[in-house]
Amino acid sequence: MQIPSPAAGLSRRAWLQRLGAVAGSGAVYGALSTLGLAEASPAQAGFKLGPAPVHGRRVLVLGAGVAGLVSALELLRAGYEVEIVEFQDRIGGRCWTLRGGDRYTELGGATQDCRFDRGQYFNPGPWRIPFHHHGVLDYCRQLGVKLEPFVQLNHNAYVHSPRAAGGRPQRLREVQADFHGDVAELLAKLVRQQALDETLTAEDRERLLQALRQFGGLDEESRYRAGEITADRRGFDPFPGMGVVAHPPETDPQGLQSLLRSGLWSQLEQGASFEFQTPLFQPVGGMDRIAHALAQAVGMQRIRLRRRVNAIQQDASGVRVQVQDLDRPGQPTQTLRADWCVCTLPLSVLSQLDVQCSEPLRQAIDAVPYFSAFKAGLQFKRRFWEEDEAIFGGMSSTELPIRVIGYPNHDLQSRKGVLLGAYAFGTQALEFTALPPQERLREVLRMDSQIHPQAPAAYECGMAIGWHRHPATLGCFGDWSRVARQRHYPTLLKMDGRLILAGEHASLLPAWQEGAVLSARHAITQLHEKARAA
Amino acid sequence: MQIPSPAAGLSRRAWLQRLGAVAGSGAVYGALSTLGLAEASPAQAGFKLGPAPVHGRRVLVLGAGVAGLVSALELLRAGYEVEIVEFQDRIGGRCWTLRGGDRYTELGGATQDCRFDRGQYFNPGPWRIPFHHHGVLDYCRQLGVKLEPFVQLNHNAYVHSPRAAGGRPQRLREVQADFHGDVAELLAKLVRQQALDETLTAEDRERLLQALRQFGGLDEESRYRAGEITADRRGFDPFPGMGVVAHPPETDPQGLQSLLRSGLWSQLEQGASFEFQTPLFQPVGGMDRIAHALAQAVGMQRIRLRRRVNAIQQDASGVRVQVQDLDRPGQPTQTLRADWCVCTLPLSVLSQLDVQCSEPLRQAIDAVPYFSAFKAGLQFKRRFWEEDEAIFGGMSSTELPIRVIGYPNHDLQSRKGVLLGAYAFGTQALEFTALPPQERLREVLRMDSQIHPQAPAAYECGMAIGWHRHPATLGCFGDWSRVARQRHYPTLLKMDGRLILAGEHASLLPAWQEGAVLSARHAITQLHEKARAA
Repeated sequence: MQIPSPAAGLSRRAWLQRLGAVAGSGAVYGALSTLGLAEASPAQAGFKLGPAPVHGRRVLVLGAGVAGLVSALELLRAGYEVEIVEFQDRIGGRCWTLRGGDRYTELGGATQDCRFDRGQYFNPGPWRIPFHHHGVLDYCRQLGVKLEPFVQLNHNAYVHSPRAAGGRPQRLREVQADFHGDVAELLAKLVRQQALDETLTAEDRERLLQALRQFGGLDEESRYRAGEITADRRGFDPFPGMGVVAHPPETDPQGLQSLLRSGLWSQLEQGASFEFQTPLFQPVGGMDRIAHALAQAVGMQRIRLRRRVNAIQQDASGVRVQVQDLDRPGQPTQTLRADWCVCTLPLSVLSQLDVQCSEPLRQAIDAVPYFSAFKAGLQFKRRFWEEDEAIFGGMSSTELPIRVIGYPNHDLQSRKGVLLGAYAFGTQALEFTALPPQERLREVLRMDSQIHPQAPAAYECGMAIGWHRHPATLGCFGDWSRVARQRHYPTLLKMDGRLILAGEHASLLPAWQEGAVLSARHAITQLHEKARAA
Repeated sequence: MQIPSPAAGLSRRAWLQRLGAVAGSGAVYGALSTLGLAEASPAQAGFKLGPAPVHGRRVLVLGAGVAGLVSALELLRAGYEVEIVEFQDRIGGRCWTLRGGDRYTELGGATQDCRFDRGQYFNPGPWRIPFHHHGVLDYCRQLGVKLEPFVQLNHNAYVHSPRAAGGRPQRLREVQADFHGDVAELLAKLVRQQALDETLTAEDRERLLQALRQFGGLDEESRYRAGEITADRRGFDPFPGMGVVAHPPETDPQGLQSLLRSGLWSQLEQGASFEFQTPLFQPVGGMDRIAHALAQAVGMQRIRLRRRVNAIQQDASGVRVQVQDLDRPGQPTQTLRADWCVCTLPLSVLSQLDVQCSEPLRQAIDAVPYFSAFKAGLQFKRRFWEEDEAIFGGMSSTELPIRVIGYPNHDLQSRKGVLLGAYAFGTQALEFTALPPQERLREVLRMDSQIHPQAPAAYECGMAIGWHRHPATLGCFGDWSRVARQRHYPTLLKMDGRLILAGEHASLLPAWQEGAVLSARHAITQLHEKARAA
């Protein structure tokens, strides 16, 4: 999943710039380094551990999410003996898909039963895979997980603010065309007023004017005016269409001043950031196809579900993990023994456990708070967004607390569909989850209907998930501060005796499955080196 | 299919601007009106003819392409008796998909046998459907044709010119980021130099700077400089990736002057034009799934294949069409009779036939030359563009005569794939087809390898189709001049006695299937009105 930004359909970059606008520009750099996005490493194509040592090769993996499953799979391939212990009654962790018949109980006991129709699904966690997430894509390829394009940027979807355009949602293509057109026209005007005569040669100025006309949809006099050329950018009005005996549209571009004041330009960069540059992908049938393919490759017989880890102990001879079988609550805890341990439990959980490790690692584990996030998936009896509004996939963004409305990218033009009705985080996520699930859904629907008035009449059922209330993660992802990253991150990545941590929290790609994959590969590489040297 | 533009991956608009650059700006407007793109009409949602009259309701439809099939289907639904006559041995016309086992013989007799593997295919004609092509999408919905997203814009694909960057292909994301960044930086500089103090208020200037920083990926001092923020736009180097213990990338943005002189900016607007704004779609399994679904709905028993139309005659009592059964070359022509005739034959064919019609219609039929186009589909034994270069779907563009390399948007990460190796038109299309098919493919491969050096080693087989050499169309689409459009287009749309024409050539959306659909609906609406009045 991407970093939930104030409008999560937007880029991390857009969020950072808003942050900059609010908190001063220093905050932007801090946030970039914290999130780790600005860091790069060479590819790890064709990842493969060498053969496991003959002795001392039993590894216990804690957690059957993406990091745990990848760790287990690669260790098994190298010849290690591996067992996975998982708290939940399912594998996958945050790589999770909800379908009809699923039941989910959050912290506090509120239980939701998923009543989606057969074939409908909702990914409450990650829902898209950028083209450069080579680790995730590599396992999809190896394990035959089918992918289909995820529509990141839909020009016909909306940008929306209660404060702009009288609260009416605006088509992204119109706002984008106007922003590009207005900016290009303004710069072209300055070029022609000789403002750049000392900066560029006459030939380059002519090239620039030509480039600006193409970019902005300007006419031959470098003006952005209602007409045939701008209609080719903004689209046609009345929408839809082009017929056989039609007349030119009369669309009315928005001027720069009005556009700047609307603030809607801030919602335009949905595909600009590297993370969201097209193409992105989704597994056919739901994100958990990845987890299931990994688990199948590992072998379900190696995964013990519904085991709570109570303590992790280690000494020179090995690791002992105390686990409670949740199906036998009266029984004493069981001690699992191994030579090594890969622990993928979220730090939010791990920090509450009795872990025998170095003091620096203990401090690192305790240093990272978890981010809150909220997603709601709503099933509708008809795809009004497709039928009435020609929105096929992608997402609308809004300044309302729901932030994002995500349209299904699959089964286009089928009858029913599950919409991502809200994708909120921070305080707004907390506010949604302060309500009981059914009231959350009512609130989401109320806000969705400001953009899609057809929503209430077509609504059937939904699921409303707050990650900060999820019993297995207690948060959405590790929210590293700049200071914590500097002080504790290197420690968190290091082997600590016989223990090593893995997961998105131990990566520079927090909140993404790719972070979990890269972290797992990094962790087991270190474990392997140590095991061979032992 | 889209209008083949000098770089067909680019927009019609980009083409028009190049045209403007070459032929003067007047040419742009002329071309826009000629192409008809700038015209709009209300939607025809829920299209339905009223009931057919009791008498005089037999309709002969000439041509089993999209226009003919839609005409037949809607006439049948209204209660007409319909028969379709088709020249080829298959239905679909330009809605055509090539698969292993297919054989194709062009004008002049050169025959190509398609040796693609099972499951591989190539659409030599239309290959994508914009979200606003409501007519086509409507039939897909009605007839259950499954759609999947077509990747129009792939930021990781290439832009390429032999004259730029030493002939090395450049990632689109880098060139685009640099263009946006350079333009934003330039305008921001002028804003800060008080160039706009009389145009915008201080608050609006501040908003503009903020918007330019977001748009261009500028730093807090509104500069576009190598660093964390620009890397978030340009992507990371070394590609791929972001790891767990990585260091910041050192990418080097291109300055404005160098970028302007490279000319590569002209290849950036692949998704800017309304026609190419995301999302676009493709039928799962090949474009001809649409034609097959239409034909099945019409009923194959109503379609006579391999019948050449020799003459169309009409009088007050009905229409007579002389057809030759191509499987019985020695036999005399057969006379088919009907009350009305919908003729969807391309004007390139129709203008050579004996048609009994008014003189103005005759002149209209003769007024439209046909555009040339060339496409090559090449099967490779491995998807080197995915495996080596992380290009999943979409297209690269180049100034080489191949113009476009299109990557399959389906079966991602599977073993083999069919690439669109060339999409040329005009003179360049003629030059390719001047060669025998195997030499065309060799030439395409030679040019492809300037962008993908791996291509020759992975090449298996291909098909090279020039539409101007196709016996059933004698061209790619009706290439209306501005003068012809003014003088003859209204005539072409009118019922002429008992005859009416339909097809992309009788629409304002030439070269698109949507033009064929809208034209068909328009034609049969007129026919229906006349039939009811008769």
